[in-house]
Amino acid sequence: MYDLIILGGGPAGYLAAERAGHAKLSTCLFEMNALGGVCLNEGCIPSKALLYSAKVYDYALHGEKYGVKAENASLDHKAVVARRGKVVRTLVSGVGAKMKGAGVTVVKERASIVGRVEGGYEVEAAGQKYQAKRLLIATGSSPSLPPIPGLKEGIEAGYLLTNREVLTLDAVPERLAIIGGGVIGLEMAAYYATAGSKVTVIEMLDHIAGATDREISTMLQKEYEKKGVTFLLSTKVVSIAEGKIACEAGGKPLEVPFDKALVSIGRRANIKGIGLENLGVVTDRAGIVTDNCMRTSVENVYATGDVTGRYMLAHTAYRESEVAINTILGKADRMRYNANPSVIYTQPEVASVGLSEEAAKDAGIDYEVKKLSMRYAGRFVAENEGGDGICKILVDKKHRNILGVHMLGSYSSEIIWGAAEMIENELRVTDAREIIFPHPTVSEIIRETLWEFDDK
Amino acid sequence: MYDLIILGGGPAGYLAAERAGHAKLSTCLFEMNALGGVCLNEGCIPSKALLYSAKVYDYALHGEKYGVKAENASLDHKAVVARRGKVVRTLVSGVGAKMKGAGVTVVKERASIVGRVEGGYEVEAAGQKYQAKRLLIATGSSPSLPPIPGLKEGIEAGYLLTNREVLTLDAVPERLAIIGGGVIGLEMAAYYATAGSKVTVIEMLDHIAGATDREISTMLQKEYEKKGVTFLLSTKVVSIAEGKIACEAGGKPLEVPFDKALVSIGRRANIKGIGLENLGVVTDRAGIVTDNCMRTSVENVYATGDVTGRYMLAHTAYRESEVAINTILGKADRMRYNANPSVIYTQPEVASVGLSEEAAKDAGIDYEVKKLSMRYAGRFVAENEGGDGICKILVDKKHRNILGVHMLGSYSSEIIWGAAEMIENELRVTDAREIIFPHPTVSEIIRETLWEFDDK
Repeated sequence: MYDLIILGGGPAGYLAAERAGHAKLSTCLFEMNALGGVCLNEGCIPSKALLYSAKVYDYALHGEKYGVKAENASLDHKAVVARRGKVVRTLVSGVGAKMKGAGVTVVKERASIVGRVEGGYEVEAAGQKYQAKRLLIATGSSPSLPPIPGLKEGIEAGYLLTNREVLTLDAVPERLAIIGGGVIGLEMAAYYATAGSKVTVIEMLDHIAGATDREISTMLQKEYEKKGVTFLLSTKVVSIAEGKIACEAGGKPLEVPFDKALVSIGRRANIKGIGLENLGVVTDRAGIVTDNCMRTSVENVYATGDVTGRYMLAHTAYRESEVAINTILGKADRMRYNANPSVIYTQPEVASVGLSEEAAKDAGIDYEVKKLSMRYAGRFVAENEGGDGICKILVDKKHRNILGVHMLGSYSSEIIWGAAEMIENELRVTDAREIIFPHPTVSEIIRETLWEFDDK
Repeated sequence: MYDLIILGGGPAGYLAAERAGHAKLSTCLFEMNALGGVCLNEGCIPSKALLYSAKVYDYALHGEKYGVKAENASLDHKAVVARRGKVVRTLVSGVGAKMKGAGVTVVKERASIVGRVEGGYEVEAAGQKYQAKRLLIATGSSPSLPPIPGLKEGIEAGYLLTNREVLTLDAVPERLAIIGGGVIGLEMAAYYATAGSKVTVIEMLDHIAGATDREISTMLQKEYEKKGVTFLLSTKVVSIAEGKIACEAGGKPLEVPFDKALVSIGRRANIKGIGLENLGVVTDRAGIVTDNCMRTSVENVYATGDVTGRYMLAHTAYRESEVAINTILGKADRMRYNANPSVIYTQPEVASVGLSEEAAKDAGIDYEVKKLSMRYAGRFVAENEGGDGICKILVDKKHRNILGVHMLGSYSSEIIWGAAEMIENELRVTDAREIIFPHPTVSEIIRETLWEFDDK
């Protein structure tokens, strides 16, 4: 009998396995596909490889602003996709090495919970039985595929794509339609627009980028429009047929012609077919219900990552899994979501952490906000000819601690962790001003914005 | 009579003026050259404009690794230098606008201290007298030009350059010699090697990059050598004549031929010719002596930035000036140098904060160190084909708080501020592990390295 069985080898699963293994818990991890899950194989990592190639191509095309000339610049999409594969294989084998190093048994099969046994639980995979004192469910999520007429057929026929297929297309489609203007949709819009597609994003809401600060998502949309991306906001997809998407906007019909279309309208927790019902694990519409120690309704059964339906982000999953393992080990820990960053890896990059103005208003929190153009950072001016961006900071009006930081501009993705640290440690404006930011960096825009507050 | 007179309009001076002005102190700032000082006009900022063009050019040359082809890539050095001028002018006018916004009187003259007057001090500039209750001396530093035979003549003739001239050369020299392998020397080596110069760095010590972690400076040297830069370590310059530098290494003579040569062997505090002797302000071999509130030996006379000879970094100067103004305003504050970052902006970037192993050993501090290859960060792998780097963290052996973070790799410059924040706030390993780093970013390497420690 193992100390711990983990269902799922994505970020939530492999991280939990690594921590558990190092803590000397005998651990068995089940993964039916490749280690690394969606994030590593069909999501965050391969999309970053594509986006980096787009960035390099952008430089080659527009280097003249910086005194660099190059002729006949071209992006070899097939080479980009091939390189993506290489990057993924390197990192997947890295996860495998980590599992080995932590002494974790990895079973490459689909597993399902059978039920309770004396002192624990039983799981079945490929006809074999496995037992453990505890279970951690980290089965992740799958693309939401709503019952739009033609959607299922389109995916089967191959002209409709999910996050998986869009990363391995062997040619750049002439016209790419993207249903859903969230993070996945936007990152793929950025890549394919740079690679030469005529991209149209169809979004049901009146804004793109989901819960991103509204001012920033509006600025981002303008940047995309400069790159030739068309946005159809407040537009609902009615039905799909090969070559055309029938939509409705403001009560009027609208047709979007396409060669390929990406369906990226959200993800759903994978709670079916894993035997949850055999234990009576409570789920809600989002996914498996847990407390802030990642315990489910069933004793010694934990759930972390996308399957909880909370934040579908790999780094949130990492931290949730650490909390779960700490809880198993009897160490005091609890999950907090107030300093949970998010990033959109396009050019320019968007990065946020903590409360947005919209969220603060909804929650009735009395806040003060200051913002500054990125052009107040010397390095930004030195590296962004004609470019602009923004940094926006929310502070609790009474206690003066930092509640949210929102950025649009180069390097934001790599800067934001320090802002997460400020929120996590409840720094006040006056505390945060004493941090020495290296000059000249774009990160200094945070310091500059902090000095916009009146705190004496 | 002003509340405050500031001598010098570089980072130390203009930041102090801005903070003083906003605090309603009537403030007069003297600057004999352009606002922004060496940093903005002849240092940090223009060098970053050059280095960014080198980066863009590098992409155009080596994009094939990422699926991007471009033909006949070329770097137009004249255009790069012209752009540098534009960037500098934009930012200098920004500093001017800040002075105006803060109600600061700016006098574009060389000023000198005359002596004490009733209730304060008197300063003279262009024959006019100015009085203030307090003085802040922020006159900065100049390149060290030691009495090497031929050095003075070479600078007059124009074949020897300082940080100023090297940024405005109208052509790329065929052979560039660099005397001094510190930060300035290395950044210029990086730019000119990329732009096509045959670069030779002559360094008296047995390592480059000054106080940088030795393991990292060794890795950095190898990266430069791949770019064709030659290093002559433990090599002393004996004399200089047009076209050749006579050196000595291990007791043997050595000749380095060159077309242009940069002299970058350090900087000296500007303490001469500003009337310090009229007040008896105490100086030592480094510069003006201050306490940790930036007070000099004379009441109501403060000194901040390079003129103190402590750390010749713009961001250190910023913080010192904030401490000085807070002290003037009667707010408790003190300067701390333990979380003071430093950066080398080459490709790859180097960024450090806090104690290095060498410094910890010298100070007899009992530390534990862990390090990890940058290839443990998924984004690094996705964006650095065949590249490598390192992250190294030092922790106090007993108290487990973080003492130092040292990085070599992309984005390090923009990541390091969060590490400064960790040291400033005395986070322990277990505290810092609870920060959520966005995935996939290079910043995650810090989190990964933190998990290498045994702290349970």
